Amino acid sequence: MTLEAASALGIDVVVLAEGPEDSAVALAAAVQFGSPSSADALARLAAACDVVTFDHEQLDLRVLQALQDQGRAVHPGPVTLQVAVDKAAMRTTFAAAGIPVPAFAVAGQTVEARGADRVARMMAAVAAFGETYGWPLVLKAGRGGYDGRGVWPVAGPAEAVEVCRWADDHDAILLVEEHVTISTELAVLVARRAGGEMVVWPAVETSQSDGVCREVLAPGPVDPELADEAMMLAQVVAQTTELVGVMAVELFVTGGALVVNEVAARPHNSGHWTIEGSVTSQFENHLRAVLDLPLGDTALTAPHVACVNVFGAEDGSDPRDRLAGALGVAGAHVHLYGKQARPGRKLGHVTVCGADAGQVRARAWAAARALGSAGGTADVSRVTR
Amino acid sequence: MTLEAASALGIDVVVLAEGPEDSAVALAAAVQFGSPSSADALARLAAACDVVTFDHEQLDLRVLQALQDQGRAVHPGPVTLQVAVDKAAMRTTFAAAGIPVPAFAVAGQTVEARGADRVARMMAAVAAFGETYGWPLVLKAGRGGYDGRGVWPVAGPAEAVEVCRWADDHDAILLVEEHVTISTELAVLVARRAGGEMVVWPAVETSQSDGVCREVLAPGPVDPELADEAMMLAQVVAQTTELVGVMAVELFVTGGALVVNEVAARPHNSGHWTIEGSVTSQFENHLRAVLDLPLGDTALTAPHVACVNVFGAEDGSDPRDRLAGALGVAGAHVHLYGKQARPGRKLGHVTVCGADAGQVRARAWAAARALGSAGGTADVSRVTR
Repeated sequence: MTLEAASALGIDVVVLAEGPEDSAVALAAAVQFGSPSSADALARLAAACDVVTFDHEQLDLRVLQALQDQGRAVHPGPVTLQVAVDKAAMRTTFAAAGIPVPAFAVAGQTVEARGADRVARMMAAVAAFGETYGWPLVLKAGRGGYDGRGVWPVAGPAEAVEVCRWADDHDAILLVEEHVTISTELAVLVARRAGGEMVVWPAVETSQSDGVCREVLAPGPVDPELADEAMMLAQVVAQTTELVGVMAVELFVTGGALVVNEVAARPHNSGHWTIEGSVTSQFENHLRAVLDLPLGDTALTAPHVACVNVFGAEDGSDPRDRLAGALGVAGAHVHLYGKQARPGRKLGHVTVCGADAGQVRARAWAAARALGSAGGTADVSRVTR
Repeated sequence: MTLEAASALGIDVVVLAEGPEDSAVALAAAVQFGSPSSADALARLAAACDVVTFDHEQLDLRVLQALQDQGRAVHPGPVTLQVAVDKAAMRTTFAAAGIPVPAFAVAGQTVEARGADRVARMMAAVAAFGETYGWPLVLKAGRGGYDGRGVWPVAGPAEAVEVCRWADDHDAILLVEEHVTISTELAVLVARRAGGEMVVWPAVETSQSDGVCREVLAPGPVDPELADEAMMLAQVVAQTTELVGVMAVELFVTGGALVVNEVAARPHNSGHWTIEGSVTSQFENHLRAVLDLPLGDTALTAPHVACVNVFGAEDGSDPRDRLAGALGVAGAHVHLYGKQARPGRKLGHVTVCGADAGQVRARAWAAARALGSAGGTADVSRVTR
């Protein structure tokens, strides 16, 4: 989707791909093959480009730092990415900047030998946190990349000790957090240039099940004051993390107040609706931001926008063979990612824009279901964790 | 732009390009090199595809007919393309179908030896037409592809004989037409599937200078009844020509009535505004039509849409180096075609959507001028011919 936006602007993109089956390869004018964690591969990429940017966060930040130290433009930079990939760094940085986050503590950050002693120290920290904030609580691996895993709600110390053992085995830091009762999940996209110019899109509601985003509604059907506050917080986050590019800031509404849950320092699933639903898409504004070009208008193109993800059907059929059903739904904008179809795999999304919130939502779900599985019913149950 | 639309839908496209500098090559997953008039090249392309389609009309229709006779899907087919490329065939077909066209006659269609005798016969036909419809009149080469050339307004017989000599030298048929005083030029895009399903976009006003389209306004600021009639005529044209794909129908408003001037059996410059200005772009509906998929909604996404072409600046500078100025214009959607910059060459377009007709127009012109030359002032003078 970034390449589609780059094509319109006449921007040449060199893609670093792990293999020829990567979706971006089909559309890229120039491709290099290599690992995004390899210093050599990144040096070769940087030599071919004015700016290096990313569509994922599976990166070695030391390699990026070295690249930046050599004078290469890397956007977003390692400082921003550190916060995005390291939950402990994020919570600590945000709390210090006055950005509301769930009550938290970090356990196991001391470098020490593995084993029972480390597990005991971690458990002591977890238990102390439980004393203060009560049980249940949530344990999280300090660094993400575990594909939805790495988050454990624990009812009491007996469950917690299992997680501490896991963390010890995996050399992981643990983040200990209060259990937050979530009434709504919001996401706010923000784009920022190096000089500080920022634009923010309207706050959207996201619905997840099994840890995966199913549906995004723009604008989010929440109190306008809360939406404004979320948009303000996203800009504070962008400034605090020295963002250059696009960032998705995910927030929980809990007890009528907001806390920031996670950030992604790249165009994000919660912003795919912007391709048709906003004057400027997240992909175009990401390109503008990293190339230090003026940022585009983020207003909605219609009163309501719904975006529903498409997952592989149970029978393994390819959504490309099921296009007719989806395109028969009025106003359905279908995006397929060119990925190999597998049951349950995220393969695309559908966006519908219009004046009636219920109708755009129903149409987006109908088209997504025609293509495969939309992973639930239109009344997606909100998950608390 | 077709490839950008194909990418979203997950449609694989094999591009037949004349050379590596063709714009489509950069975005194509698969490229074959060859001439679109070569039977071998087209046979090779057809063998790699389910459907063969076109983004220009520089084709050998006999080769396409042979391909179709071999059972290959060629959309639009040779019957449609014949009308689009052969002005004499078009006028004759449309007149027979009751579609209003300028008064016309065909001169020089008899196969005969070149020379003074043929010139005299053509002149006799031209003079007879002049007797009936008066002078000035317009002579046109029967087949287009002369890049804006091939149209001669002639004041009287002395000028006409020069054109007849040209036609004799070039083995061309001449179309003789009444001089039409044009108050407005309209264009209507229509998409049609093989089974007859059709969608039509709102009629737009196009402004040309020096035979080249400068600006498109949607909806065209004309009497709604006239716009409806133009949209109806475009559908009759699509049906009459057995269209499968997208067609642009260009009409003149003359004395308060409509005549059809030209058609293009492909996505067309007069429809570039549909990328952001319509729910479904001409490129996506062209793909849907040739693949026999349901056609998408053609409604406007905003009350007013302006699209202004970008031409190479006099200093030969590349519009890609001038992006910042254009992207600083609120709501400007910039499309650059990746073509080598040359003064006066069409290199892209800018679309702006919004509630205020004057504002969207001013913004589109401002952004187009920032990128290069927009080829005129915002008050483009209407050309009569």
